[in-house]
Amino acid sequence: MLIIGERINGMFKDIGLAIREHDPKPLQEWAAKQKEGGAHYLDVNTGPNSEDQTIDLPWMVSVLKECTDLPLAIDTTNYDAMEAALIAYGKPGAIINSIGCEQEKIDRVFPMAAKYQADVVCLCINKVGIPKSAEDRVAMAMEFVANAEAYGLQPDNLFIDPIILPVNVAQEHGIEALETIRQIKMISNPPPKTTVGLSNISQKSPHRPLINRTFAVMAMTAGLDSAICDANDDALVDAIATARLILNQDIYCDSYAKVFRQR
Amino acid sequence: MLIIGERINGMFKDIGLAIREHDPKPLQEWAAKQKEGGAHYLDVNTGPNSEDQTIDLPWMVSVLKECTDLPLAIDTTNYDAMEAALIAYGKPGAIINSIGCEQEKIDRVFPMAAKYQADVVCLCINKVGIPKSAEDRVAMAMEFVANAEAYGLQPDNLFIDPIILPVNVAQEHGIEALETIRQIKMISNPPPKTTVGLSNISQKSPHRPLINRTFAVMAMTAGLDSAICDANDDALVDAIATARLILNQDIYCDSYAKVFRQR
Repeated sequence: MLIIGERINGMFKDIGLAIREHDPKPLQEWAAKQKEGGAHYLDVNTGPNSEDQTIDLPWMVSVLKECTDLPLAIDTTNYDAMEAALIAYGKPGAIINSIGCEQEKIDRVFPMAAKYQADVVCLCINKVGIPKSAEDRVAMAMEFVANAEAYGLQPDNLFIDPIILPVNVAQEHGIEALETIRQIKMISNPPPKTTVGLSNISQKSPHRPLINRTFAVMAMTAGLDSAICDANDDALVDAIATARLILNQDIYCDSYAKVFRQR
Repeated sequence: MLIIGERINGMFKDIGLAIREHDPKPLQEWAAKQKEGGAHYLDVNTGPNSEDQTIDLPWMVSVLKECTDLPLAIDTTNYDAMEAALIAYGKPGAIINSIGCEQEKIDRVFPMAAKYQADVVCLCINKVGIPKSAEDRVAMAMEFVANAEAYGLQPDNLFIDPIILPVNVAQEHGIEALETIRQIKMISNPPPKTTVGLSNISQKSPHRPLINRTFAVMAMTAGLDSAICDANDDALVDAIATARLILNQDIYCDSYAKVFRQR
């Protein structure tokens, strides 16, 4: 499973300040620190206080592409800012994060994904909301896949996110989300990739890290390919490394957890 | 998921000595301690050094039925000792642990299960060995279920164990065992129960508790109903309580991990 490090987000005080002052240092530090923790991608998000995302987001991307070899997940629903950031990135392999299941958004974003050779996080949500059942979520996944084909993308250019809700307020959604992931891995060949915003599962619970890592392992069992999460939560990264081992995705050695972080 | 506490086993020094001297105290102490940890059943095993299991095992059962309300999983393949222990237990609800998939063992044990109203742990192993594929393991599960019917047992009187092998020597078995569990939950209505000997997954690894709890959560995602494991491994019990929550098997409250232990 791929870890998409969540920390370079203007929602966090140090990053918010760095964006305001266009100070590259905190971004550079968190890029290095998350890579050390085990991140395979870095999420990049201006947070809610950016005065102009079309300026701030490409700036963030420019800073990061100079200081890290990790690919970026560009996180905004302002698609003008997204395109400016993809131009600043200037190479294939980014992730567009994200779009909901609405035709006008698909029509805006999928051509961009094809043009800049980026993958896309596709959320199982539409104008009506987040469906409860796995069935209705999978129907959205199929809509995304059909559209991908029409726009010259492959199914595995998509990271479909079933949408995770907090276990303490929407407890019945968890098993539906797990079943959604399991079924998505069977709807096409190659199948779409899957992702989740992991920390949603534990919002406002006093046991956040425990709930996060438990859900991560459960979702991996269902076929999860990636998660936006805290790459510096050691117990989480250990759990992910161990689940990969049990799923026979990495070869066992006694120092497997260390090896997982060093790749 | 039900926790079958593994600690009352003559393999452990203190219990081995207690059996040799027929000293009830260590058994009583471990019964209480495991219940406090979160056990729902207590496994009872003389270990390999009992001079006469037909005496030692009923003695252990007699001690335990006096001091705890937890039901017992009677753990031996000496079926004369098993029957003596079931007689000593003298009430329904024990678990016979265990038999392999061989007709003469089934013919010896299933009538005993019916007579004493006990459930049976059925291992997916036969004279040929442990099959690698989920398919072959599920075939054994179906053989057990067909035999249960013939002997007047219900499918959910069976705890089918796919057999867990150490991840560091038989890494490709893990996903097959998980898939076995998933499929077993669909072979009859009601389906058989499932169980595993959890600590097998981590034998001779330096990361035993991490691997154990990760596998427990993965197997629960696949539908695991119970595990023979260390009820006093707090991180394991926390992980089990959390997975139950995410599977919507217990209602969320902030102190859910404590509540889980107190039932």
